[in-house]
Amino acid sequence: MSVTAAAGFEAAGVAAGLKSTGAKDVALVVNRGRSHAAAAVFTSNRAKANPVLWSQQVVADGVVQAVVLNSGGANCFTGAFGFQTTHQTAELVAEKVGIGAGDVVVCSTGLIGVGDQSFRDKVLSGAAESATVLSSDGGLDAASAIMTTDTHPKQAVVEGSGWKVGGMAKGAGMLAPGLATMLVVLTTDADATPAQLDAALRAATHVTFDRLDSDGCMSTNDTVLLMASGESGVSPSADELEAAVTALCADLARQLQEDAEGASHDITIEVVNAMSEDEAVEVGRSLARSNLLMAAVFGNDPNWGRVLAAIGTTSAEFDPYDVDVSFNGVRLCAKGAPDRPVDEVDMTPRALHILLDLHAGPATATVLTNDLTHDYVHENSAYSS
Amino acid sequence: MSVTAAAGFEAAGVAAGLKSTGAKDVALVVNRGRSHAAAAVFTSNRAKANPVLWSQQVVADGVVQAVVLNSGGANCFTGAFGFQTTHQTAELVAEKVGIGAGDVVVCSTGLIGVGDQSFRDKVLSGAAESATVLSSDGGLDAASAIMTTDTHPKQAVVEGSGWKVGGMAKGAGMLAPGLATMLVVLTTDADATPAQLDAALRAATHVTFDRLDSDGCMSTNDTVLLMASGESGVSPSADELEAAVTALCADLARQLQEDAEGASHDITIEVVNAMSEDEAVEVGRSLARSNLLMAAVFGNDPNWGRVLAAIGTTSAEFDPYDVDVSFNGVRLCAKGAPDRPVDEVDMTPRALHILLDLHAGPATATVLTNDLTHDYVHENSAYSS
Repeated sequence: MSVTAAAGFEAAGVAAGLKSTGAKDVALVVNRGRSHAAAAVFTSNRAKANPVLWSQQVVADGVVQAVVLNSGGANCFTGAFGFQTTHQTAELVAEKVGIGAGDVVVCSTGLIGVGDQSFRDKVLSGAAESATVLSSDGGLDAASAIMTTDTHPKQAVVEGSGWKVGGMAKGAGMLAPGLATMLVVLTTDADATPAQLDAALRAATHVTFDRLDSDGCMSTNDTVLLMASGESGVSPSADELEAAVTALCADLARQLQEDAEGASHDITIEVVNAMSEDEAVEVGRSLARSNLLMAAVFGNDPNWGRVLAAIGTTSAEFDPYDVDVSFNGVRLCAKGAPDRPVDEVDMTPRALHILLDLHAGPATATVLTNDLTHDYVHENSAYSS
Repeated sequence: MSVTAAAGFEAAGVAAGLKSTGAKDVALVVNRGRSHAAAAVFTSNRAKANPVLWSQQVVADGVVQAVVLNSGGANCFTGAFGFQTTHQTAELVAEKVGIGAGDVVVCSTGLIGVGDQSFRDKVLSGAAESATVLSSDGGLDAASAIMTTDTHPKQAVVEGSGWKVGGMAKGAGMLAPGLATMLVVLTTDADATPAQLDAALRAATHVTFDRLDSDGCMSTNDTVLLMASGESGVSPSADELEAAVTALCADLARQLQEDAEGASHDITIEVVNAMSEDEAVEVGRSLARSNLLMAAVFGNDPNWGRVLAAIGTTSAEFDPYDVDVSFNGVRLCAKGAPDRPVDEVDMTPRALHILLDLHAGPATATVLTNDLTHDYVHENSAYSS
């Protein structure tokens, strides 16, 4: 289950010396199929890294034949020199693979500000080398090469009727809506147009990656790319395509959540009976972004008071004195007042479920997040990224 | 320098057993002057604690003669029983002091959800006792009685021409705009109307407490109260009153920042050349609320890349590739690209100054915050509040 699960794709992952550990750090995925339709979603952060600026242009015509990704440096805020590095990387891959540079997406991840001559030399040599070892078994190597603080490669595949869609993802810290410092490559052998891929991808990211909010920070480099080879000969319906891509993104999003930097709990925040889906999401996010609540969870404290204090900062429609809060199935607060005793909740499992009933309407939404731990503080104070 | 510095005020602070340490936990401040004009600002969190719900009504007519404050319990989300406790507290103080219950403001701070019979009994006995030991020297006792996680009482005074305004404040965790879990009582012997006090107080809080954003969390109990006795016989101009109240609030806000729970840096974020003051504040807040940036500061890492990543999430007007970032006077980023080497910055002093030049307009604003440390996580995971 990887980016080479679907027919028509080859991949590679090599070590170019960008990572001091000598681990793989440049990945390449090439679409060898009859079709080169593609769609992508990028970070909504207005400060976009050089590779994002380049790739937005590449994807604009809906045609992509390859994507080259490096870890070990985000090439962000690296000026014109950094943009040239991205451009040269695309040119080099295009030359080696035999395609046009304007069909090569480039992604980078790692420390912001890294992008000097040494960086350029390694990225280029890695790109060139990866093009010589492409194979239909190269998916795992590619998934490994894009890792930064990830503890393991993340891959998944979803099967349709006679077609499939698979993918790889990286991301652990800096997860927030807008797809913070997350790189995702999805490949399918479905036969679909760029517009169909775009619709499916946007619907999928909207309810998955956009609702993964580990620490409220939004990155500069995020890219979610979907490429279609058409090699299955099957053209799924819009609903089928959206459902499969959504299921795949949900799986990868869960893997990212479960690998969030230093987290000790994986928290599913389910907001029900909201006035609208947007409001349910807004309320869910207010919980995910409450440092006090997330620290309490780290301390295994089912602090419903901090839940109410957090949602009171939103503009969503509800009566603060008519909401229910449950932790792992135990209702601790009913209509804004204490209900079951807090010691009935077992907070020790890594998975935590918070249910919040707003009694305001028919809508629901789920937001994924993680708690605020000493390890998070340590990891993000001890190294520059 | 305290709430009894201005003429016409008496105060007291007693121990009622709300704090297990036996420390003082009920405070009372009474205006014995010829005038009882007052104004207050309360939390903007829609989930307001019982004492806030009560006090909003008390202040509505611009007349306040006393304020009773307890620590050891926020009396928030404690239902109708909790509201009755607040009401009974006001009634008891009114009876003991010889005034109307509708002129008694009540404030509470401490754990959310605490407000049962035992809590009520202690608050009432403490309120009754405090009324028997009022004195014009009681300011420090009162300032001590309102402390929760504060490490020391916070007081200040500002002198006008023949009049003065003094105050006390508590607050350490949960500091954010909207005056999170902050209680502030300001007393002046100026002769001023409720409307004049209100205008001065709102202007002052707008540029001080509202820009103190330690951890992005907004409380349920915040109250900033300003009472005027008129005993100086002096009626300052609107400008004079606003300037003095603002200076006092700025002093107290600094004290709160410098005592933020577990912080290792006091950070002054100065945003200059923004399109508007509101945008400057929005940008400053995006930095204060970036966990990645605040963790980097804790690690003594002047991570300008995370500064740019944070401001890119705002809608303020600026070009991400035309901003300058300086840490403690060293410009690390010019026009969105690296400038001086990061090792030129000394991050070891507790005070940190971040200057961000947006090159977009004429406006500036300053936001105060603190870094994200292990101690913060420990304090907020280890106890329920």
